[in-house]
Parts: sequence; structure tokens; C-alpha cells
Amino acid sequence: MNKPDFHFPKTLEKLKRGGPAVTLPKDAGMVIAYSGIGKDSKVVELGTGTGFMTVQLANIVKEVITYEKRREFAELAKQNIKKAGLNNVVIKEQDVLKGFDDEDVDLVFCDIAEAEKIVENAYSILKKDGCFAAHCLNIEQAKSLFLELKKHFKDVFMTECMTREYEVRDFGTRPQHFGLMHTAYLVFAKK
Amino acid sequence: MNKPDFHFPKTLEKLKRGGPAVTLPKDAGMVIAYSGIGKDSKVVELGTGTGFMTVQLANIVKEVITYEKRREFAELAKQNIKKAGLNNVVIKEQDVLKGFDDEDVDLVFCDIAEAEKIVENAYSILKKDGCFAAHCLNIEQAKSLFLELKKHFKDVFMTECMTREYEVRDFGTRPQHFGLMHTAYLVFAKK
Amino acid sequence: MNKPDFHFPKTLEKLKRGGPAVTLPKDAGMVIAYSGIGKDSKVVELGTGTGFMTVQLANIVKEVITYEKRREFAELAKQNIKKAGLNNVVIKEQDVLKGFDDEDVDLVFCDIAEAEKIVENAYSILKKDGCFAAHCLNIEQAKSLFLELKKHFKDVFMTECMTREYEVRDFGTRPQHFGLMHTAYLVFAKK
Amino acid sequence: MNKPDFHFPKTLEKLKRGGPAVTLPKDAGMVIAYSGIGKDSKVVELGTGTGFMTVQLANIVKEVITYEKRREFAELAKQNIKKAGLNNVVIKEQDVLKGFDDEDVDLVFCDIAEAEKIVENAYSILKKDGCFAAHCLNIEQAKSLFLELKKHFKDVFMTECMTREYEVRDFGTRPQHFGLMHTAYLVFAKK
Repeated sequence: MNKPDFHFPKTLEKLKRGGPAVTLPKDAGMVIAYSGIGKDSKVVELGTGTGFMTVQLANIVKEVITYEKRREFAELAKQNIKKAGLNNVVIKEQDVLKGFDDEDVDLVFCDIAEAEKIVENAYSILKKDGCFAAHCLNIEQAKSLFLELKKHFKDVFMTECMTREYEVRDFGTRPQHFGLMHTAYLVFAKK
Repeated sequence: MNKPDFHFPKTLEKLKRGGPAVTLPKDAGMVIAYSGIGKDSKVVELGTGTGFMTVQLANIVKEVITYEKRREFAELAKQNIKKAGLNNVVIKEQDVLKGFDDEDVDLVFCDIAEAEKIVENAYSILKKDGCFAAHCLNIEQAKSLFLELKKHFKDVFMTECMTREYEVRDFGTRPQHFGLMHTAYLVFAKK
Repeated sequence: MNKPDFHFPKTLEKLKRGGPAVTLPKDAGMVIAYSGIGKDSKVVELGTGTGFMTVQLANIVKEVITYEKRREFAELAKQNIKKAGLNNVVIKEQDVLKGFDDEDVDLVFCDIAEAEKIVENAYSILKKDGCFAAHCLNIEQAKSLFLELKKHFKDVFMTECMTREYEVRDFGTRPQHFGLMHTAYLVFAKK
Repeated sequence: MNKPDFHFPKTLEKLKRGGPAVTLPKDAGMVIAYSGIGKDSKVVELGTGTGFMTVQLANIVKEVITYEKRREFAELAKQNIKKAGLNNVVIKEQDVLKGFDDEDVDLVFCDIAEAEKIVENAYSILKKDGCFAAHCLNIEQAKSLFLELKKHFKDVFMTECMTREYEVRDFGTRPQHFGLMHTAYLVFAKK
């Protein structure tokens, strides 16, 4: 059983991966498509990690402001963003549980534990109809976040994106026997 | 068993759906994320349909050139693109099986039957490392396309994106019992 | 979107369904296959409901002892078992949270809320290498049960069985667009 | 990425696996549950392989007649059936494409290539409402079989059983990241 191919686009291939789990293209795609962000959007990211999602977002939108409390990740992310050739990202080395501010934001993307604690703050910086999206590592975190979002946001939903790759040969086609079965629970809401 | 919510972002909500099946956000997200397109990209779309995917692409990239051979769909797409407030789309009322040209394209997105017939033409207009992506309605079409792509492109793969939404309540969390199980087979390749 | 066909075998088609959700053949199949029960086995079922699973088990094994605390379900189950032409079932109208006894049992199948409360009792009536299996309606229940089983049993695992049916036509094959996405979490353990 | 645990019940654990892919418990469970076979049933199996499915069937039903054309597999199957302590199996070393006969059969289970060629023969030996079930290694084989079954049988359907196992820990629950994504397409029909 070999490691599956995550199909990173060219921009991501060059980046360095550190400790934290990255948001894979399949999940980044869900966030981009459901939020409807585009080239005029402003995005705030909570939890930069190594900057994989930051790069995927900044490649599309006008401006990304991203928060990371751990110095070593902020540094790694800075290098990755530079390698990707992007100049529309601001990294703030700051703990978002202690607060963050901004305004008229189109998307708040959140990839931290205890995401339920920043729900009200996220609401306050979004524009009307702006989207909140989160990448949750387990169902307990996703549930806590979902229930808190329900108190403030509309159109709250929790979903999961499962991809399955195929073996295609002239004589026979079938899904691969082994592969990536799960990455994260995704939770969305609209202001 | 109610119709599931496809979670269209705001831009898509206003659009008119005609006959052809649309590319839903979940599949549009895969195409955007795996291709790595961004705000500087040029995209050629083969098979406009009602313009749902056109709008999702044009919202992100610099320029979309889209081909549709049936007058009624081209007209509907024009209205939808206008409703979405986008002015970076060129619709060509033309049968792509008879040929199409362009150059330095970042992504060719294809949503037509017999997609295997345009593989060479698509290759010719893509830039190096440019991406080919297709939305196939059945596995026979996806297979024919895959095998033809293998002759010309690198990194050919076929995948499927399955989403599953959750019921989240304080006393109990589980996936929804009924819902959308399948939309399309997605085939990707790199020049 | 029509109700999906659950593909009940002939024996189940005649049965009457009351209030409680039944264990569908796909999940019954998992329990039968992973437990390895056969024609010489003795099974204890906790939570008869309308007797759908009782009938599926009794059709295969030597003897089923099943517990149901609610009179109306016990009555319905009795009728269903009779309709199915089975005479190897004993129904006990009794609340299993207050205790149950037996010995040398090959499989304890459990379909009640708060299943974690009967784990020790279930352990005591199983033979060595006997199997415990449960059908859980949400992930919170499944988790509580799993963690309690870990304290007493070996080979504890939690799984889910997802089926997807296909449209097969000469000109094109694909999974059905809409259908049954989830029924239950299944938890297994071995004594 | 480790090999996933297939959760073989005790009877299967001791068996020897040779070349051919075995029918795993999850798929055996589908066949048992959808066909409704029980302790009074007679089953004919086409394609014994190493006898994994033979053992799973014979553990449940009254009598299994199984066909295998390759001597080495027939021998291995014989040993496996003996190891499992079963004495209700007849192995016939014979190529089923050249014909087979029996009568009043409750289930014909088929695990051979070109299964579409034995459809009429299978029909002839089944009792009324008897079940045909097949384990197909790719979608092309499954489709050919399905279309041929439609000409003779009722209630034809093609499905797939996907299981997903969970990591359950006090602090967080989620599906396993990597695992078994696909085994076989299953095709069913009723006489």
C-alpha cells in the first residue's frame, strides 16, 4: 500500500511541509467553491500552519491576512509564500484566541483547535453574506463549532469531501483498492 | 426524501438552470484546486451549457473563453454571466469537435460527450504544465477520455468527489440518511 | 428523488414495520460476516424492535434469545417472527439495563441506546472468542460504547457500511445520483 | 500506511491464502444478507478460488457445491475447508463455462471472469425466487453481467459495499485516514 498522490498543483509542489497537517487541494477546493470567493475577495485565515492553504487562497483572491501564533510555523509559512511568488499575504504572529480585527471580509477560514471560541469575533469582521469555513480534525471539534455557529450565523452546514481515484486500463476499470479515506470535517456558515 | 441542498454560493443562486446538468460547486472546487488556476489564469471551457461552471471559473480567473454549439444554451449562458456581473468571458457559438484555437492556456475544462476527440486540440493550446480537466457523466466516457489522454499528457488521473452532509444535534451527530451520492467522474491531466 | 430500494430478501418482504428503525440487510450482513456466526450458533439480541434483525439472525443460527422491554414491539416482533416461519426464537419482555443472563453465547447483538451500560453483562454471557456487535444511531453513542468495550474486550473496532447502487445501461454506467448515504455506526469486539 | 485489518472471523483466520483475491467478509455479508440464505439453503458456487467464500457460505447453509477448474486451487480449497471443520461442501474440479447442473438451488454465487456466459445455466438450476449473486473485479465485467441478467432475471441490481473504520479516542473521533476503498462490484438478481 503506497502513499496516495495528493495531486498538488504546481505552486504547492515546491513548498516545504512541516509538522502540522496541511489542507489538501480537495478540501481547499470545497472552501473556495462553497464560499464563492474570487479575485476581488479579502480573506482572513486563522491558523496559518505551514501556509499550504494560505498559498491556495492567495493564488485566487486579492488579499489574505493570516494569523499564526507559533513563530516557527509563521517563519516556514513566510518562506513558502515567497517560494510560491505571492505578494498579497500579510502574516500576523498572534494568538487569535486573544482577538483579531478587520472588516468587510469575504471569507474567514479557520484551521485551529477550539474554533468555537472565535465564532463571534469572526462574525464581527465578515461582510453581509460573507462566509465562514473551518477545517476540523475530529468530529467533536466540528460539532462544538457547528453548534456555536448556529447561534450566530445562517446556512450552517457540516460536510466531508471523500475522493476516490480509479485504475483505468483497457481491459478493466475500478477504484483503487487502497487510498485516502478521510482528511477533515468541513463546517460552513454564512453571515 | 427531500432534494439535497447543493450549497450554491451567492453568485450562483440567482442563475437560471436550463436543461443540461450543471457542474456543482463540489466538482468545480476539485477542478479549481487540482489545476491551481488563479487570478492571472486564462481558461478555455468546452461546452458552456447554462454557464454555471463558466461563472464559477470567471469569478476566479482573468479570462474565460467558452464554446457552446447550441444557440439556446449560449443565450442562456450569456444572461447568466451578465446576472453574475462578470465581464471577463467570451462565448463562442461553435462546435468544438470541428476545432478551436488559442494559446498559452492554463486550464482547458471540458464538459462535452466524446471528449476524447478534442484531446489533441486541447493539448495544442495549453501552456507547458497547463491542466486539462473534464466532467464526465458516465464511466465509459471517462475511460475513453482517460486512455486518449494517456497518449499525449502526463499525470493523468481519474477521480470522483463524494460529499456527505451531517445532522448535528446536541444529543446526536450522524451523516444524513439520504442525499447526493454521485455527480460525475472527473478526469485530469497535465501538459 | 425516490425512496431507495433496500433490497429486502423474500423473508423480510412480508414483515410489518413499526416505529423503530430496522437493521437493514447491508448492516445485518456486516454483523453476520464479521462475527462468523453459523448454523450452530447461539445469539442473544438486546433490543428486538420489530424483529427485523431477529429474523435475519434466526434464519441463519440455531437459536436466538431476544430482549425487548416495550410490550407493543415485543408483540409486533412475535407476529413478524411467526410470519417468517421461524421457531428458534425466544422473546423475553424485559429491560436489559436491569440485567440478563445466559452462557456460551456466540454473538451478542445490541441495538439499544446507552449500550455502554450492558458491556460487562454481555461479556459475562459470551463464550471465549465470542463476538459483540452493536448498531448505533449516532457517533456519540458509538463512541461511548467503543471506549467502554476497550476496557473489557479485545479486537474492538468501529466501522460503517456504505453501499452505492449503479445505473447500468448499454450507453452509460454510473452510480445513482441520489440514495441512502448512511444508516448506522457498527461497533464490534471479541471476548 | 499499514495494510488494513480485514477483520476475518475466527474460522477464516486459520486459512491459507493463495493467488486469487478472496471475497472479504464485508462482501460475503452483502451476499448472505441480500440473498436471504439460511441454515436450510443449498448454494452453488462458481469459482472456488482458495475457498474463502466457500467457507463463509458453508458455515451458514446446509450444503455448498463449488466448482473450480484449476487443480491447484481446488486442492488448496479442500485443505482450507477441512481446516475450517466443515463437511457440507462438495468441490467439483470442472470448468463451469462448459456447463454445470443441479436443481432447486437457493443461491448461485459466481466469482469468475466472463460471468455473463453462465447466466442462462445459473437460471436453470435456481428455484423460483432463488438468488444469483456475483463478485466482479472491474466495472466492465459487472456491466456485461448486469445486461445479460436483465434478459432473464428480475430485480437485477449492481451495488458496492464501502466500509470505513474509525479512530476512536476520548479526545477525538474520526475515520481512519488511509484504508481499503474498494474491493469489488456486486451484482444481484432474482429468478
